[in-house]
Amino acid sequence: MSSISFTCDYCEGAHPLILQALEQTNMVQVQGYGEDCFCRIAKEKIRTACGCPDAGVYFLVGGTQTNATVIDAMLRGYEGVLAVETGHIAVHESGAVESSGHKVITLPQHAGKMDPEELDNWLARFHADETWPHMVYPGMVYLSFPTEYGTIYSKAELTRIHDICRRYDIPLFVDGARLGYGLSSPACDLSLPELARLCDVFYIGGTKVGALCGEAVVFPRGNVPPHFFTTVKQHGALLAKGRLLGIQFDTLFTDDLYFKISRNAIGHAMRVKELFRGRLYIDSPTNQQFPVLTEAEAEALKGKVEFEVWEKLPDGRLVTRFATSWATTKEQVDYLETLING
Amino acid sequence: MSSISFTCDYCEGAHPLILQALEQTNMVQVQGYGEDCFCRIAKEKIRTACGCPDAGVYFLVGGTQTNATVIDAMLRGYEGVLAVETGHIAVHESGAVESSGHKVITLPQHAGKMDPEELDNWLARFHADETWPHMVYPGMVYLSFPTEYGTIYSKAELTRIHDICRRYDIPLFVDGARLGYGLSSPACDLSLPELARLCDVFYIGGTKVGALCGEAVVFPRGNVPPHFFTTVKQHGALLAKGRLLGIQFDTLFTDDLYFKISRNAIGHAMRVKELFRGRLYIDSPTNQQFPVLTEAEAEALKGKVEFEVWEKLPDGRLVTRFATSWATTKEQVDYLETLING
Amino acid sequence: MSSISFTCDYCEGAHPLILQALEQTNMVQVQGYGEDCFCRIAKEKIRTACGCPDAGVYFLVGGTQTNATVIDAMLRGYEGVLAVETGHIAVHESGAVESSGHKVITLPQHAGKMDPEELDNWLARFHADETWPHMVYPGMVYLSFPTEYGTIYSKAELTRIHDICRRYDIPLFVDGARLGYGLSSPACDLSLPELARLCDVFYIGGTKVGALCGEAVVFPRGNVPPHFFTTVKQHGALLAKGRLLGIQFDTLFTDDLYFKISRNAIGHAMRVKELFRGRLYIDSPTNQQFPVLTEAEAEALKGKVEFEVWEKLPDGRLVTRFATSWATTKEQVDYLETLING
Amino acid sequence: MSSISFTCDYCEGAHPLILQALEQTNMVQVQGYGEDCFCRIAKEKIRTACGCPDAGVYFLVGGTQTNATVIDAMLRGYEGVLAVETGHIAVHESGAVESSGHKVITLPQHAGKMDPEELDNWLARFHADETWPHMVYPGMVYLSFPTEYGTIYSKAELTRIHDICRRYDIPLFVDGARLGYGLSSPACDLSLPELARLCDVFYIGGTKVGALCGEAVVFPRGNVPPHFFTTVKQHGALLAKGRLLGIQFDTLFTDDLYFKISRNAIGHAMRVKELFRGRLYIDSPTNQQFPVLTEAEAEALKGKVEFEVWEKLPDGRLVTRFATSWATTKEQVDYLETLING
Repeated sequence: MSSISFTCDYCEGAHPLILQALEQTNMVQVQGYGEDCFCRIAKEKIRTACGCPDAGVYFLVGGTQTNATVIDAMLRGYEGVLAVETGHIAVHESGAVESSGHKVITLPQHAGKMDPEELDNWLARFHADETWPHMVYPGMVYLSFPTEYGTIYSKAELTRIHDICRRYDIPLFVDGARLGYGLSSPACDLSLPELARLCDVFYIGGTKVGALCGEAVVFPRGNVPPHFFTTVKQHGALLAKGRLLGIQFDTLFTDDLYFKISRNAIGHAMRVKELFRGRLYIDSPTNQQFPVLTEAEAEALKGKVEFEVWEKLPDGRLVTRFATSWATTKEQVDYLETLING
Repeated sequence: MSSISFTCDYCEGAHPLILQALEQTNMVQVQGYGEDCFCRIAKEKIRTACGCPDAGVYFLVGGTQTNATVIDAMLRGYEGVLAVETGHIAVHESGAVESSGHKVITLPQHAGKMDPEELDNWLARFHADETWPHMVYPGMVYLSFPTEYGTIYSKAELTRIHDICRRYDIPLFVDGARLGYGLSSPACDLSLPELARLCDVFYIGGTKVGALCGEAVVFPRGNVPPHFFTTVKQHGALLAKGRLLGIQFDTLFTDDLYFKISRNAIGHAMRVKELFRGRLYIDSPTNQQFPVLTEAEAEALKGKVEFEVWEKLPDGRLVTRFATSWATTKEQVDYLETLING
Repeated sequence: MSSISFTCDYCEGAHPLILQALEQTNMVQVQGYGEDCFCRIAKEKIRTACGCPDAGVYFLVGGTQTNATVIDAMLRGYEGVLAVETGHIAVHESGAVESSGHKVITLPQHAGKMDPEELDNWLARFHADETWPHMVYPGMVYLSFPTEYGTIYSKAELTRIHDICRRYDIPLFVDGARLGYGLSSPACDLSLPELARLCDVFYIGGTKVGALCGEAVVFPRGNVPPHFFTTVKQHGALLAKGRLLGIQFDTLFTDDLYFKISRNAIGHAMRVKELFRGRLYIDSPTNQQFPVLTEAEAEALKGKVEFEVWEKLPDGRLVTRFATSWATTKEQVDYLETLING
Repeated sequence: MSSISFTCDYCEGAHPLILQALEQTNMVQVQGYGEDCFCRIAKEKIRTACGCPDAGVYFLVGGTQTNATVIDAMLRGYEGVLAVETGHIAVHESGAVESSGHKVITLPQHAGKMDPEELDNWLARFHADETWPHMVYPGMVYLSFPTEYGTIYSKAELTRIHDICRRYDIPLFVDGARLGYGLSSPACDLSLPELARLCDVFYIGGTKVGALCGEAVVFPRGNVPPHFFTTVKQHGALLAKGRLLGIQFDTLFTDDLYFKISRNAIGHAMRVKELFRGRLYIDSPTNQQFPVLTEAEAEALKGKVEFEVWEKLPDGRLVTRFATSWATTKEQVDYLETLING
């Protein structure tokens, strides 16, 4: 490898234990479509980890697919979903939610987060507006945890938003594409069972946390939409070899692996954060860090480390993203340190 | 294993060489979304195998997803797709095609196949009907190769259907979920490059032919619909770790592996066919065989081999399906022989 | 007029009393979107005529729009609608139902009608098929009354179908684009209240029975889908000047006008039927008659009367359609008689 | 009538000449679905008025329906439409555009208008963003003329926006629900032919400008999307009695009626504007005026005139809307004057 990549958290394959499990089980003949023993075991482990014995658990393949499928399954045709303007479903999913007929209604973002107060006001105004039957009904709230800017909701904030959803009788959906990195942050005051209790559906991201692919959707209180299996199939989200997902999540939820590798990423991310102290675009407590670099600084790193350029500031400086992951090593961060601190 | 399964061709994991390749490349850092070197190499090998140097090649995850994505990308909103009534998109995809707004218009099936004559007549009648602007416009023809009943089209038949499509200026789409098993059949007079020449888009099935997951969509003459990448993403069919698909297809198209393992399945299937000679529901030249069993015969096999019950005949006998695959062994078929022939 | 048209039942404008009512109320200022006094009064009259004091009544503009809106409102995303293969939604609506994501699942037709036995068997087979979660769930039954061939269901038949729907807990939707002509047929043993009792939603066709446009959707037992108003708007089916529909239905349901003019059409249709006795394609008891004519006979009528050619029989003769309507006059049928009987 | 309504421009029925034309032609038998002589004549008159001899003209029923149908017909599945955040399609159409699968991408509004500069910058940024294939492709620009706030684009502004669209090769769609009121404003420097030249598709609103219902879609340079008739039918937007629309537009485009009645509305609106001088929320040159009233002032008008409350300002005052129309009389405005000026 000519250079080391901090571009994203899906640069490598899978955690070695996952490959090992795939190999060990490879010739076992099982049923298709997620009705196999590996999926069964993995689901049970996830129920336990979430403290939700009645949870419905489903394995889907990727994030955009999961968002579109869950939202479509939980909304009626006349309903849309509330998200912040930087929410993944609002920006980077090629209109997958709209392509199933649902509007993404956007609220302002604050460091990538939804403000409970603003949500409450928005809903109050909507219901007070006499023309609301001519508008898309807000049928769900969507949050990312962590957000697209690496930030996380506190228990108080999530509780507040959950309460608002309860009051308006609409489900709260938490996109956990990077859930492990959020829950493993030292700044996080939420446990997985607490998060499960404070929303109506969420998913535990695998793709970005050590799996080859796969996201585990959890309906914490057995509140699975009717015929969800058929909806999953209809969305092209059902794997014939469901075992591929079951085996991976079984591995991730054995011996706390999912959180162990998440903590690894966070540890390295905090070092990266320290390296760029004083020039961070946002105060992110998770595995994505957003240093602001001059063009010259960015140029100097070229060919040595890879990272993403997020946006260009009016003054010409670049907001960049350095992501660590389950696969990041101490050596890689040491190398980055040398480059930055000379 | 208590019993041996002939239920389907996706009972096992992946061909060992695939797992080996995943392991060897695991820690290589690459770009996401299919822009990695493994995908690039795999695409080039597929272009070569198809004899289509200008082909657009895309890797998607599963069959239903691939069908829905390709059909949606190639049709305009007012168009539907013609298929036989037993076509996979018409029956077993939970309405994925309709959920993107397109009608599946059905023609009668003959051993799972579309009759070119009937297609031609149907299109002639459609265009002669003055009320056609009130109807769904037939914008594409969909065939499975092999079909859901294991049968295959001859070169003459496919040529005939392709000519009809040309005449009406509509694309021909071949669903190759089991393409390897079709092309490797001794009854097949088509090569992969010939098939590529005789249709406008097709896919090379990976999931059922040795991969963990994955289908390779081929637009043989570079005729990729505009912004197809975005359509793939919109359909939730884009893997962040595209490498998972690239590495698998790279392996399958190295040293003729895809066809070697397909021939293995066909060899075993012909033995199974011979075992049930005289009581086959359909004359299938590929890896799916459909023996007609009495209830007693089916009962006697229980707990020893597993197979699917396809349907019940009016006289009470059962149409069953025994599928071989890349993973089927001589020992498994020997064992089945013992059970059948006593 | 050079020739008299029996082409369809929407050749003329509106019943004169409707135009008169539009004129008399023209400058009254009212609220938009169907919240006006004319709509309120019309709805009340329809509730009375249906014997359904709790009915939800909505006015939409045209038939295809009404079918697509009602079906979309009552089905979940994974559900499809069962209809006979000649049903309007299956053939002549340009895929409007599919364009909202729902499959039209077809059963054989018998003189345009669904056979209760076949429906029952189909549903039993569906639920017995272990692969059903991979299929579109049958979430509604759609019937036309009268059918596209002018035939009608008897009370016994409709009761049977309704009972089957109850058993499977799916709604029965009756497309009444020509409802007046069906209920006014001497062969009909159903009253409007009986029909309302035997289905879960139906519409009273205005466009083909004397209105300029408009269909009245009736949810007989107050079983209006949540937020139906919003769904109507979303489908582009909400008129800003809802009064246009309210005034028309108010007029049609005053002094039994809707049925008076329907009976006029039926009286004339029975004369037409008698004229073509012995050469009718189908035994239709309503306003559409289907004489089988030789090419020469059809040619001879050209320029004198207009009619539709439905299809060409293998022997070269033509199945034609002669439709009477609220506007048909004795003189017109006399003239046709002269032409036929010489 | 107890009180006079300035609530909207669709409070009354139709212009008397329209009712007269409906009556005079009522018993003429014509073909359905817009293939009648009245539609033919009306289309020709519209082509002449637009100075577009090759224009494709289609009559649809209402505004939301027209927007959804035109947008769906002109966009591919992966494309969305750009509009300002107050655009009708973005706010008040119950998600009709999204329900056909297309995202409405919003830009800021300035007195209801899109800023050409901002549009240009947005498109430049989109195309410069490397992640754009993961985003909805901006495939069309949508403007309202006049806007939802009664404002209009100058020839220079529209030319600017049209040029930007040309540069990015995307169509410009002008929603002319109130087109007559816009073009008849003294502040307007655009003629109908000029507007037709400066966009790729627009519609001439009938519902709000004297018709019972109906909007005339114009593709100025014969650039009708393929199979548009089928798309119209699929969207439930095709009237069986197309004559209803043809007769109305024939009347409106005879002897300049459409513009005569529009000028009537504008004349009265300018008086209303004058009445509220100094307390207008926005400087609207068309038939909608937005006075800011205190709660007490609004209360005092109750039961005497009706108007809409648009929104509540932070200081408690109300932004109201007073709309004049083709039907507004001098007496009505005199009466309002008495109420306001005492």
